Order: sequence, then structure tokens, then C-alpha cells
Amino acid sequence: MAASSKRTGKSSSVSRTAAPVKLPPVDIKTHRQIVEFADQVAAAAEKRRDPHLDIPTRSLSNVRFNKSRKIIEMGPQTNRRQLFNLSQAKSYMQTLLVATGCKALIDQQKTTSIRGLYYLLKHTIEGTREETFSTQEECDPIIEDLEVTLESLREQLHVYASNRGGMVGPIVLIDSGDEIDCARMGSGGYSIPSIVEADIIKFKSCEAKFILHVEKDTVWRRFNEDKFWKKHSCLLTHGGGQPPRGVRRMLYRLHHELKLPVYCLLDNDPWGYYIYSVLKQGSINLAYESKRMAIPEARFLGLRSRDYSRCELNPSVQITLNDTDIKRAKQIAAYPWFAGKKAWQKEIEMMLTNGFKLEVESLISKDISYVTEVYAPERIAEGNWLD
Amino acid sequence: MAASSKRTGKSSSVSRTAAPVKLPPVDIKTHRQIVEFADQVAAAAEKRRDPHLDIPTRSLSNVRFNKSRKIIEMGPQTNRRQLFNLSQAKSYMQTLLVATGCKALIDQQKTTSIRGLYYLLKHTIEGTREETFSTQEECDPIIEDLEVTLESLREQLHVYASNRGGMVGPIVLIDSGDEIDCARMGSGGYSIPSIVEADIIKFKSCEAKFILHVEKDTVWRRFNEDKFWKKHSCLLTHGGGQPPRGVRRMLYRLHHELKLPVYCLLDNDPWGYYIYSVLKQGSINLAYESKRMAIPEARFLGLRSRDYSRCELNPSVQITLNDTDIKRAKQIAAYPWFAGKKAWQKEIEMMLTNGFKLEVESLISKDISYVTEVYAPERIAEGNWLD
Repeated sequence: MAASSKRTGKSSSVSRTAAPVKLPPVDIKTHRQIVEFADQVAAAAEKRRDPHLDIPTRSLSNVRFNKSRKIIEMGPQTNRRQLFNLSQAKSYMQTLLVATGCKALIDQQKTTSIRGLYYLLKHTIEGTREETFSTQEECDPIIEDLEVTLESLREQLHVYASNRGGMVGPIVLIDSGDEIDCARMGSGGYSIPSIVEADIIKFKSCEAKFILHVEKDTVWRRFNEDKFWKKHSCLLTHGGGQPPRGVRRMLYRLHHELKLPVYCLLDNDPWGYYIYSVLKQGSINLAYESKRMAIPEARFLGLRSRDYSRCELNPSVQITLNDTDIKRAKQIAAYPWFAGKKAWQKEIEMMLTNGFKLEVESLISKDISYVTEVYAPERIAEGNWLD
Repeated sequence: MAASSKRTGKSSSVSRTAAPVKLPPVDIKTHRQIVEFADQVAAAAEKRRDPHLDIPTRSLSNVRFNKSRKIIEMGPQTNRRQLFNLSQAKSYMQTLLVATGCKALIDQQKTTSIRGLYYLLKHTIEGTREETFSTQEECDPIIEDLEVTLESLREQLHVYASNRGGMVGPIVLIDSGDEIDCARMGSGGYSIPSIVEADIIKFKSCEAKFILHVEKDTVWRRFNEDKFWKKHSCLLTHGGGQPPRGVRRMLYRLHHELKLPVYCLLDNDPWGYYIYSVLKQGSINLAYESKRMAIPEARFLGLRSRDYSRCELNPSVQITLNDTDIKRAKQIAAYPWFAGKKAWQKEIEMMLTNGFKLEVESLISKDISYVTEVYAPERIAEGNWLD
């Protein structure tokens, strides 16, 4: 590649910050945190000390389960990142670069994806052949580092994740000034955005009594087509598999602000258990976000390992567990938040004894609408779920 | 697995068809076609002839580019599937089973996903250890066979695909009876459903002058945030990568019924070229759908191979072509619908000479809003696109 000969020498777009605008209240705090973060560096330099950053450690060793709050939290360990250390200089520079990028986004009142931020910051350093970031995989963990360090959500740094996930039901929202009646959104439902903070999304009115969260959009669609949410006065959400942050944060806000119980209908497999675990207690990787995303009161409605015999399913719906499934199931059973729960131990044990997993879709072999007309209403009426 | 001992012997849910309801006009034709399809079998049996099905061949050998209509079409070849032929009996039975499942869905006025249909039809055949379908991979091609045979879209058979894809802009739709103003759908936009036929989605009013279709939701979000659609009176759509059928069919309807030109903004790589090719001429695998999905007038706005120098991009945004990219690019250049076009040959040739590909997101290295404020408006104003 004749790349370097074409080098334009232009500074990247992050430095060309637009004229300062009056920031909305939600951004003032994050903006100040970034500025203070940078001031540390300047202060160290003025005192002729080596500049460094202390980044909270994001690893299993620094994660603990808070038994009283019932969420996964980060511990106090930090890693020091120094400028004058050959092995740390690059990540030190990258951390400040990501902070600069986020500040530029806030200043300009714009948002971007993690891929966009990567391109925004990626350039060949003048006079060298060195690139700021070689791949996006180098940039993504730095964004998480910054989130932890500033105790700020990615969304508050104006970087968004995927907006997979949908919702339908008797709630009226104000989203970016538009009034959205989620009971009148057609067959596709309301697409839950990645950023659902209170300055962007406000709850105007809600007549729902609970939330039914399902794993996949295909199952969601069955429930929507059968107008389950209308018959049962509930909100119906899905996260397209493992729910992205926007969906988790939306469920959290609906649960805490509107006091709506959350029922989860997920596959009877280790992946389904794991999704429930993340919704309920938070994830190990994003432990610093638990307090704003985890819903310890969430309930696991199904599928349950006993449903194969309880619902008299045809043997052909069984999917044999593979070695990874078995390994994952045992790991999940050993999670501290499941370890002390007899019902959960029995649930996972029974899946292992069965030797197979079941998808929610398998209930269609009973009847197209069995899941919406029999399965879910019965479980809710019986109060029959796992905690 | 002690599966077979638990066999319940119950018939699967497809046979328990609900009491016949009055079918909506759109379903009457499909329903009649399925019944006629089954009648052939009965007629053959009555005449003591071997029952067979003639299934149009879905392979490259049976696909041709219709130069006057400018779309990819299927040829006249068919494969015969016989009941009394050991190697064909199973697929014969599966084909009739899928038809039965689709008829049950239409009778009950319900829809399901391809996974749902698989589960609906999957069962152990009574008195044997034989399953109707072992995996979903066995069922999916049969659905396509049935679509071709009945000249019916999957959606008309009440089976839906993914509903990835979004839209925003000055258009008011009626979706399943709900009035949807796509200019007031908040930050997530209108989620384009998988089934967008005229009985489900009606266009009420539209003030848009054209459609800008972008490849990814992250790019779409940049355009939405900058209110591009408001400034330029257009609809803004994305397909989450290769657009699913619902998005293609929606673009087709918007283009043909509302006479809106379609501009595509895709990555400068073989995958981007391919997406354009599918939107414009149809795909080889789903050639039978071209006449209801392909938009021969669609225009390729970018990214162009010359944009690297035209836009003075930083060398760090280059992504080196790998062997697969080079092979795919040459294949695409040889497609009959590109083969005769000098501008396209030059475009692909230049990417190969560059030796690198470019993503739309790379324009962010110029400025966060360069793509919405400079790139796209300039190309449209100049009439600078590929056909």
C-alpha cells in the first residue's frame, strides 16, 4: 500500500471542536469529569511528576456479588497506566484519546457508535508510521476503561451500542420530543434505542401491570400478533437474544420508576439461564453498570426443565446438550447468586439429567398459540416461576 | 435419550385446524393454490398414477438476467419429486407437510417464523423412529421450494423472516390499523416489519422526494440524528447489512407506488456492491422474488473507490483487501448486469488497484457529520452516482 505517501497531515476531526454550546444538564457532569480527568495529567506535569491514570480492574478477580443489594459489583482494585513506561505509553495515550473523542461528541451534542468512535480517533501519528489504533478491538476495551474510571455509562459518553430490541404495550413515551404510543406502533413495535436516559426518553403515562420480556423477536411477534399485551395489560419486550444495554436500561427504568414486575420467558438452555442472570444480577464484564441495569426482582417464568413432561411435548423437540452446554450449565450453577438457591440448583440439575435443551419455539408443536394462550397465562396465574 | 419411550402419539398441531374463518382477500388466492397443489396428488392417486410434484429448479443454471426488465429471473427448468422413489419420498412428504403447515397458518390467520414452522411440523412419525425433519436446515429449502412452486412469497404463506431494518421520514403509514407517522417515531425510528404487503401496510400520505437507503443502523443513526431526512425531505432506511425481505419489499413498494427514487449509500467493498446488486436486480438464490422486490432504477451513491483521494481521507482508514474480497470483486464484476457497464467495471477495477476497501463510517475521520452535511448532499446535487 502506498498509504504513507498519501498522508494528508491533517489533524483528525476531534480537535476541530465546534463552538461551545450550552450543554444539557445530563451532559454537564460527564463533561466536567472528562475535564477533571485531563486536569490530573496537567497537574502531574506541572509538579514534574510522571503522569499516570488509575483504571479500575475489569476482571473476575475484581468482581463480587453484593448479597444485600443482590447485584454483581466491582471491587476496589485498580491498574496504573503510566506515560513514561514503554509497555503502557500506548494505552495511556489511547485512554486520553478516547476521552478527547467523547468530549468532542458531548461538545458537539452528537453521538456515535463504537465503530464510529474508532474511526474518529484512528489516524497515523504525524511524522511516524504508528497508528493510534490498529483495529477496533484495541479501541473498545478503552471505552469500557473510561466508563469505569469516570463511573459513567457509555451512553453518557455519547457512544451507543446496537438498538436491537422492541417493545409494545399500553405505555406512552416521549422520545426525543416525539410522543410515542407503544400500543399503536403497528406490527413492528417500538424499536428500543440504545440511549434511553431520562433526558431523551420520558414516561408520559402507563397502564401496564407488568412486563413480559422474551428472548427473541420471533417469540415476541407471536405474543404481539395474539395481542397478549392487550388481554393482560402488560408491556411486551424482547432483546434479540442477549439484550443490549438500551433494553436492559429501559427494563430497569420501567421496573424502578413505574414499579412494574419483570417476567422473563427464555429458552431452557444455559444461554437462557445466562440472559436471566445478566438481567437480574448484572454481568461480570460490565459489573460497573449493574447498579443502573440489574433488576434483582426479575422472575424466570420459563422455559423450565420440567416443561418437557409437564406440557407433554413431542420428543422430536429435544435438542441434545453438547459438551459446551454441559460445561456452561455447571459454571452457571456455581455462580454465587445461584449457588444458594435450591430451586435453581434443581432446575439446572434437571436439564443435565434430561440431557437436552428446549427452545420457547418448541411449544408451537402443541399449538401455534399455546405459548400465549396457555403457557404464559398459566404460569403467571399460578405464581409459578423461579426467583 | 429415552426419547422414544416418552412419545405421546398425539397428532401435531397442524392437523387441529381451527374452524374455517372468512379469509381476507389477500389470502384467498394463496389458500386456493395450496388446495389445488394437494388436489394434484389426490387426482393422481384416483387415476392410479404415481403422484409427483414438479418443483422449479433454484440454481444458477436456471437463472437468467432479463435485459429488458433488468432483473434476475428464473428459467423454466423443474425437478420432479416422486412419492414412489426411495430417494425422493422424504422430500416429497416434507413438501406436502410444509404446504399443510402454511395452510393451517392461513386458516387460523396467524403467522410464524421459519423456525416456528419447523417446530410446528417436526414430529416423530407414528410407529417409526423417523422424524419429519431432523434439523431446520432440512425445512428451510422446502419453504423456498413451495414459494417457487406456488409463485407465492414467503410472506403470503404466513411465514416471516427477520424484521431487521428501520425507517424515518415524512410518511404516514397505516400498519395493522395503527396510524404511524414515521417523522415522529423518536430516536429508534419505525421498525420495518417482515410482512409489508398492502393488506397490512397502507401508505396514507407522503411528502418525501426520494429514499436514502444506508447499509447499517449505525450510519442510519448519524443521518437521523442530523435530521437529514427533514432537511432534504426524504425517507431514510437501513437494512442492518444485507436487507431482509421486508425491507426490500418496502423499498420496492415505496419506489413503485409513490415513485420515489432510491439512492444507496453502502460500503466500498464487495459486500456493499453485492447489497446494491441484490436491491437492484434481485438475488440468484431468490430469483423468483425479483419481480416483486428488485428495483432496477436504484442508484449507487457511494462509497466510491475514488472517494479515498476525492475526500482526502487519512491512510489509516484503509482496510486491506483479502483474497476473498478480491475473488468476490472479480465475480461481481463478471455478473451480466455489471459486465456491460463501463462505469462499474472502472469502479471495481479501481478498488482492486487501490488494494483496500473503505467503510462509510471512515468518513467520520473528516468530521462527525461529514457524511450527512457534505458527502451525501454533494453527490445528490451533482447527480454523481453509479447506475
